[in-house]
Amino acid sequence: MHDFKTLVTQFEGRIAQIPALSRSPESLYEPCRYLLGLGGKRIRPVLCLMAAELFAEISEDAWQAALAIELFHNFTLVHDDIMDHAPLRRGQATIHARNGLTAGILCGDVLCIAAYQHLGQIRNTLPTILAIFNQTALEVCEGQQLDMDFESKTQVSVADYVNMIGLKTSVLLAASLKIGAIIGGTSAGNAEKIYELGKALGIAFQLQDDYLDAFGDPIKTGKQAGGDILANKKTFLYLHALENCDEATRTSLHQLNNLPDNEKVAATTALFRATGADRACTHAVVTYSEKAFAALDDLACTANRKAPLKKLVESLLHRQF
Amino acid sequence: MHDFKTLVTQFEGRIAQIPALSRSPESLYEPCRYLLGLGGKRIRPVLCLMAAELFAEISEDAWQAALAIELFHNFTLVHDDIMDHAPLRRGQATIHARNGLTAGILCGDVLCIAAYQHLGQIRNTLPTILAIFNQTALEVCEGQQLDMDFESKTQVSVADYVNMIGLKTSVLLAASLKIGAIIGGTSAGNAEKIYELGKALGIAFQLQDDYLDAFGDPIKTGKQAGGDILANKKTFLYLHALENCDEATRTSLHQLNNLPDNEKVAATTALFRATGADRACTHAVVTYSEKAFAALDDLACTANRKAPLKKLVESLLHRQF
Repeated sequence: MHDFKTLVTQFEGRIAQIPALSRSPESLYEPCRYLLGLGGKRIRPVLCLMAAELFAEISEDAWQAALAIELFHNFTLVHDDIMDHAPLRRGQATIHARNGLTAGILCGDVLCIAAYQHLGQIRNTLPTILAIFNQTALEVCEGQQLDMDFESKTQVSVADYVNMIGLKTSVLLAASLKIGAIIGGTSAGNAEKIYELGKALGIAFQLQDDYLDAFGDPIKTGKQAGGDILANKKTFLYLHALENCDEATRTSLHQLNNLPDNEKVAATTALFRATGADRACTHAVVTYSEKAFAALDDLACTANRKAPLKKLVESLLHRQF
Repeated sequence: MHDFKTLVTQFEGRIAQIPALSRSPESLYEPCRYLLGLGGKRIRPVLCLMAAELFAEISEDAWQAALAIELFHNFTLVHDDIMDHAPLRRGQATIHARNGLTAGILCGDVLCIAAYQHLGQIRNTLPTILAIFNQTALEVCEGQQLDMDFESKTQVSVADYVNMIGLKTSVLLAASLKIGAIIGGTSAGNAEKIYELGKALGIAFQLQDDYLDAFGDPIKTGKQAGGDILANKKTFLYLHALENCDEATRTSLHQLNNLPDNEKVAATTALFRATGADRACTHAVVTYSEKAFAALDDLACTANRKAPLKKLVESLLHRQF
């Protein structure tokens, strides 16, 4: 059994040897190497590897799937950063900011294709894995499109929002686990359970993010307090507050835009508390977390095999409130 | 045996039934349907189908590969149009011009993923087909990156240019034929020959395009005469003229930018003739065409099976000079 840190270290060695990244021209592949070299937590590929190890030794197929998942994730990051006009990623310049729009688009494209190169190396159950991967890939794009659509949409419900983050964030976590489990040779029933685990984990994690952005300790989160509020993001907290307040409060919520930054954050978080959005959010986090842990408990495999995955899920869900 | 027109009609029926295109949200998939509905000659998928029919009945695998190839081609068109700032495609608004940059990027992304969904339906030799497809897909992106790089590069040779169009245009034609032939069950030797046919065909076709842009009859080509010249494109003609003229002529070629449009086109084409670039271009077209026909003759299959493909290649290469 391997723990998170050991798997990340081994996975970084694999990343450094991806054949596509040493192709030419440099103008196309150097930015790809730059992005992958910025790191990131590698949660998705490790979930895939850990899911495989629930049922068997980690096979070469599992490594190839893990590489495909991380390459695909990075492809979505590059294109999302363009759409979000984001200047920074992991504290460093985004590809489009550093190398221009053309490089941003094309680097994303080749990272996506490179993901399929690694999928193509899978020797067992390739058609099954490919079908799950493709379905997930479409859903991730659909989630991003919905997220973009929400910016200009006036009527977005909390349910719409949870559906969107489910697609944009959770399905890839869920598919990472499911693909790993299938490569490990598990049953169809277990594969569905571990998918549900990933789906609930992803939603709980994102809702936690929403909560911590408004109410977390900036020293612990490492982020500006109220960043989502200042960017007028339609988060769970904002949408829940809108759905659960009277007309006067709704109007005042819109008028907070005219306040200076620190006052806007203070007034908005006060309003989140007054409407019960904060409690609804922590309640939803607890509900989805419990769902994730229940799915994990429900998986048919020995307890010692589950230990590393359980520890990782706990560390992801027990962040500082 | 099926001719070009019959296969295009049948293929259009398949395009209309692509499952991914009826997914939601509409903001993502309506632009995809719009693009695929603009038509296009469907040369690549038909080449795939004809190559399969050289050796066997057209199987469901061949149809799936043809759909994958057309979806991939349209993915590259959407992203290329963004990078080229192109307002029009087939006389209609491009996706980014019609639906914005976000839709342009994401529609391209889902068309690429949808291509892999159809590849994933292939029942025989899937790993082989996937490997050819992935290698080709990376090369197409590399060709586009080189094309973009050439815009700002001062030293581009005729050889660099032919390498670039080989990647950007020819490898997908070549892979379409090779994938079809492999699905048809041909030998490795035939697969290589038909790949060479496609590669030469693509280069000959693109060089013809360069020639016709400067010297073709606008009534026959349907394009503005000298469009490439006015856009300062580094075509075969331009690069050959630069490589084969003295310093004084080179300086005067750069100074033509200051002339009014019609004078610039007239002076530049005169210079192409004076330096022999026009003859070098037609010579190269003939050389690559002969290479394509030789590869076709060399394919081991019955002559009657070859007839439709031969007719298509002839129609592509015997355009009006």
